[in-house]
Amino acid sequence: MAENKEITQARDLIKVDNELLENISVLIESKDAKSLLTIFSDIHTADIAEIINHLDVDEATYVFELLPTETAGEVITEIDENLREKILKEIDTKKIAHIVDELETDDATDIVSDLPDNIAEQVLRHIDKEYSEDVKELLKYEEDTAGGIMTTDFVYVNENATVQDAIDEVRKNAEEFEHIYHIYVLKETDELVGYVLLKSLLLNPLSTKILSIIEEDLFYVSPDTDQEEVANTMEKYDLVVIPVVDEKKRMLGRITIDDVVDVIHEEASEDIQKLAGLSEEQESSDSVFRISRIRLPWLIIAMLLELFNAIVLSNHEDLFQRLVLATFFIPVVMAVGGNSGTQAAIVMVRGLGTGDIWLNETLKKIGKEFFVSILNGFVCSAVLLIASLIFFSDVTFKFALIISIALFSIIIFATVVGASIPVLLKKLKIDPAIATGPFVTTSNDIVGMIIYLSIISYFFL
Amino acid sequence: MAENKEITQARDLIKVDNELLENISVLIESKDAKSLLTIFSDIHTADIAEIINHLDVDEATYVFELLPTETAGEVITEIDENLREKILKEIDTKKIAHIVDELETDDATDIVSDLPDNIAEQVLRHIDKEYSEDVKELLKYEEDTAGGIMTTDFVYVNENATVQDAIDEVRKNAEEFEHIYHIYVLKETDELVGYVLLKSLLLNPLSTKILSIIEEDLFYVSPDTDQEEVANTMEKYDLVVIPVVDEKKRMLGRITIDDVVDVIHEEASEDIQKLAGLSEEQESSDSVFRISRIRLPWLIIAMLLELFNAIVLSNHEDLFQRLVLATFFIPVVMAVGGNSGTQAAIVMVRGLGTGDIWLNETLKKIGKEFFVSILNGFVCSAVLLIASLIFFSDVTFKFALIISIALFSIIIFATVVGASIPVLLKKLKIDPAIATGPFVTTSNDIVGMIIYLSIISYFFL
Repeated sequence: MAENKEITQARDLIKVDNELLENISVLIESKDAKSLLTIFSDIHTADIAEIINHLDVDEATYVFELLPTETAGEVITEIDENLREKILKEIDTKKIAHIVDELETDDATDIVSDLPDNIAEQVLRHIDKEYSEDVKELLKYEEDTAGGIMTTDFVYVNENATVQDAIDEVRKNAEEFEHIYHIYVLKETDELVGYVLLKSLLLNPLSTKILSIIEEDLFYVSPDTDQEEVANTMEKYDLVVIPVVDEKKRMLGRITIDDVVDVIHEEASEDIQKLAGLSEEQESSDSVFRISRIRLPWLIIAMLLELFNAIVLSNHEDLFQRLVLATFFIPVVMAVGGNSGTQAAIVMVRGLGTGDIWLNETLKKIGKEFFVSILNGFVCSAVLLIASLIFFSDVTFKFALIISIALFSIIIFATVVGASIPVLLKKLKIDPAIATGPFVTTSNDIVGMIIYLSIISYFFL
Repeated sequence: MAENKEITQARDLIKVDNELLENISVLIESKDAKSLLTIFSDIHTADIAEIINHLDVDEATYVFELLPTETAGEVITEIDENLREKILKEIDTKKIAHIVDELETDDATDIVSDLPDNIAEQVLRHIDKEYSEDVKELLKYEEDTAGGIMTTDFVYVNENATVQDAIDEVRKNAEEFEHIYHIYVLKETDELVGYVLLKSLLLNPLSTKILSIIEEDLFYVSPDTDQEEVANTMEKYDLVVIPVVDEKKRMLGRITIDDVVDVIHEEASEDIQKLAGLSEEQESSDSVFRISRIRLPWLIIAMLLELFNAIVLSNHEDLFQRLVLATFFIPVVMAVGGNSGTQAAIVMVRGLGTGDIWLNETLKKIGKEFFVSILNGFVCSAVLLIASLIFFSDVTFKFALIISIALFSIIIFATVVGASIPVLLKKLKIDPAIATGPFVTTSNDIVGMIIYLSIISYFFL
């Protein structure tokens, strides 16, 4: 958890809104550094970051360079990633090093990993040796693993320590950490034995042996545990902090709940992003060109696949010329079939992601989906049968029945496929969320259209 | 935060998987209560809840009734809401009262609010008077506000207290709370002055006046603050706990980060659910009928609106009969137009939800979307122009040009509307996420189709 000294200092915070932003823009334009710093001294660092996120790159860089090093350290971790990269490109390597020096190792690693290699090296050379070794160590882990989100700063005592020793250790670290959740207890070899709660130090005599008031550590993760699994574990067991240990159970670092909150947000956003057809997450400060680049891949893939669909349709030119009615129900079939598939897919994707659905019970779940699709297919077909007879004077009972049967088949097909593909992807160790992306949904469209046209052609040509 | 004594007791946890679940099912069938209890004593309460979530109602009720009261209290809060309701219907009122007595007030309120009115009254009559008053008080708040998720249990001292007094207070509450984050400092009137960190008690002499080591409280919310806003505040400022105060700043309760983690999950799931066309969140234990009921509303609304689309198409029968080519590109237009709108809508919905987009800068954001749509419209139209000429021998340059212009117009229309509707809904104080639901997306489909058909008809009829 970041140091939050500023929270308790700045008593009367200025509310951040558009008006403040406009005032700040004016001050930036007139390069009024003094007034800007006066304003910023009354704003929480998280709010300064929010303001910066709403500025363009030049303005943002100017403001960021004004900030005192300590403030800059607190602000930088909260700035949108893309904007941050651009700002750091403009800033002197030494200044970056000073800022990085202010951070906890996990945040420092995040910043350094985003820098170009040569700059990153220079930055690491300018900071404290021991600290830069820690950061280099953390850089080895994948970004989305426990190692990638842990910090190597933690308070610990030896297993032979007393309460007095632990309190001394807390005193030494009191400045650095706002919240100390656990004091870890390690063997000489760094092997994790357990932890002591702060309240236990308060309620026991100073000479008490630590081992007599220890809580044995049940939950820990290895550095290569997927961050989503870390989040699920901490959420499930209501943990505020979890230690990260190596294969010999030697303590490497810890992950706090605030980092996990970010992970939960990130994983949900990823699901949403794929479902909405965005190739990457869009940030508030993104330029028109970047937004366009994030959205175009889906649009183009969808269009090319739907062009294939157009070819399928053109192969049924005969049908359309003899039975123009068949044209009118294309949107119905596409919308209802497509949505049935997406509904089933997203429930499976979320369930597999949060661990609510176990991999070895998926066959049962797919079976359930099959029954759901029969039920929904039946209801939708019945509605279509009746509505098409009411609204379209040209529609005969035979035609209405045939398109209803087609819709029924499409709903069953799309639902079962939609539920199965995430499972298949998960078993192949591919991110199941792809199942709600353009390839699968549009392919589902195409097969749906083929079913529709084949059934009608069979009965009417 | 729930008491977690069990975590440190149960050293060697059994891993929960399908095999264990099958063994448990066998034991349930043979009503082997003793073996079941032996197994459950080795399983974490969160895992017992997970097992129950994977059982059917009768099995789940049988298992739940076996559990000792204390364990049942820890398990019940983690059971899926629908299943929980069904289980509680089968259980004796007195037993429910005993279980509720074990819970913190926020969890107790959740349980009681789900009970039928007459049962809820009986349960409240059976529990501790003071406690039931607290729960009744909490029942008054809306479920999705700060009041609805706060707990009224917290550790506090008077502003005239010393470190010694505060330590005594911690001792009194040590059993009840696993984590004590802050000791709140209140005036005689209950007005919140600030808080003391546990580590400050550890590092200062016993006679120190609390007021001299107090952290002034900057962040607090009122009981009717929306839970999403609470989550945003705690996430932004990295808070682990936030106090809830009334209009006179009298302390009413507190909200801890683990509750907020649930809120973040819930809000993200709601966005996903609307985007995927689910009318409610689907839970692992839901029956085929319930799943069907969750999914049918979207499917039926989408179908009825698409039937309106079919009427639009039937009004252009002439066009399709003279130019069957126009039929083939319906899926392209629907897919690309629909997705452009959804992309813009979801980015706006998420931005407004997390506070990344301020309500007074939405016009600027919609303007940005307009430029994005011009760019994306241009690229997509160009691809369509070329691809349709290559893949379809019947397509003339004029026809290709016209459908490309139509696509261009539809992308701009759908994007701007998609971005605007969430803003409009937010200003009308309606949940913006509706914008990604069936009404808006399907209406967008229909207007897109009208644009497509009108442009083609204008040039070819």
